[in-house]
Amino acid sequence: MDKAVVLLSGGLDSTVTIAQAIKDCDEVFALHAGYGQLTETREFKAFENVCKFYNIKEKLIVNLDYLKEIGGSSLTDKTMIVETGGTGLENEIPDTYVPFRNGNLLAIASSLAEVKGASRIYIGAVEEDSSGYPDCRKEFFDAFIVAVNLGNRPETNLSIHLPLIDLSKKEIVELGIKLGAPLKYSWSCYTGIEKACGICDSCILRLKGFKNAGQTDPIPYEN
Amino acid sequence: MDKAVVLLSGGLDSTVTIAQAIKDCDEVFALHAGYGQLTETREFKAFENVCKFYNIKEKLIVNLDYLKEIGGSSLTDKTMIVETGGTGLENEIPDTYVPFRNGNLLAIASSLAEVKGASRIYIGAVEEDSSGYPDCRKEFFDAFIVAVNLGNRPETNLSIHLPLIDLSKKEIVELGIKLGAPLKYSWSCYTGIEKACGICDSCILRLKGFKNAGQTDPIPYEN
Repeated sequence: MDKAVVLLSGGLDSTVTIAQAIKDCDEVFALHAGYGQLTETREFKAFENVCKFYNIKEKLIVNLDYLKEIGGSSLTDKTMIVETGGTGLENEIPDTYVPFRNGNLLAIASSLAEVKGASRIYIGAVEEDSSGYPDCRKEFFDAFIVAVNLGNRPETNLSIHLPLIDLSKKEIVELGIKLGAPLKYSWSCYTGIEKACGICDSCILRLKGFKNAGQTDPIPYEN
Repeated sequence: MDKAVVLLSGGLDSTVTIAQAIKDCDEVFALHAGYGQLTETREFKAFENVCKFYNIKEKLIVNLDYLKEIGGSSLTDKTMIVETGGTGLENEIPDTYVPFRNGNLLAIASSLAEVKGASRIYIGAVEEDSSGYPDCRKEFFDAFIVAVNLGNRPETNLSIHLPLIDLSKKEIVELGIKLGAPLKYSWSCYTGIEKACGICDSCILRLKGFKNAGQTDPIPYEN
């Protein structure tokens, strides 16, 4: 009887990740964090729609406004311009990097998993063909879970599951379709609300993934 | 020019810890977290008084109410009774343990340190003669900082400083007095607001520390 905490932003990657967790586990807890990112409201709508699709009963929504207060990212700081037109791979670390965000999210997931008796944490991180964020690398997750299991109760033994870590966006789209994930409810754009902008790094990667998989992205675009 | 982020709850241990950081570093950022603990308001007052004493300009106050929502601790759950009359050492893990709290706090400190260009994080954890919390052990901190430095920018290189980790409460009181720490502003009680209760685990450890150091605790007690 495996129980899992799944980090679900409502983006393409986390939507495919929760589909994998639903397949693997008996019970799934969905964890969503707002941190003052520009598209927080739209992402929350995506989160709610995906949870509804999977009939997820136990949800935890956390407010990490302190990440906005700390700043240092174009995702949370309106005075910084969100990078567009690239793949995120030109610069070593894109401006959209939110300092140690995944460390913060995984710490919360670890607290929740411990109390709920879950043994697994799922996160839709992708090492390549994605972001270049240092907290998306497998070696980070491997080190983090060692710390987690030293810092919680002896009877708690958590593992981090990274079903997408080695996949390209094409393969993520293919996996999502294979698992029947509700991709139409997912939202990836860094700037749009009603329609995705189609030009931010996140949109470009997403669109490329659908194109390479020979699929049409079911969400609406401006351009 | 070392800069430091100091976790400052406003308790005895963190008050002595910030005194050490002030001595060691050129600039100190104080980080305080409320997480729905019963004495949050009183702890915040202690935090503010200690910051004022040291003329700390840069403070970050974060709200971790999700730890209350997650529950599992008598510090955040009013339906659980705070353990009293012991030293915290009788049970392997006391009921006051907040699941992976230090992991959550250190993740925030890591984000803040990265953006501020700080190289050190100070936390007043005490391994022995204290709490029995798994996230207060040196091996946890050692593992956590490895994960932190894999999860942030390559140019960020953080270290965790634990000036109290091997000290007894007696030695903490002695160090605080030696450093001129404002112990009269610190607050340790798990239940009291106007006066400390004198009977919770935290009060008992604190009072024992002052007694063994041959000192009088400058804060008011009910009993």
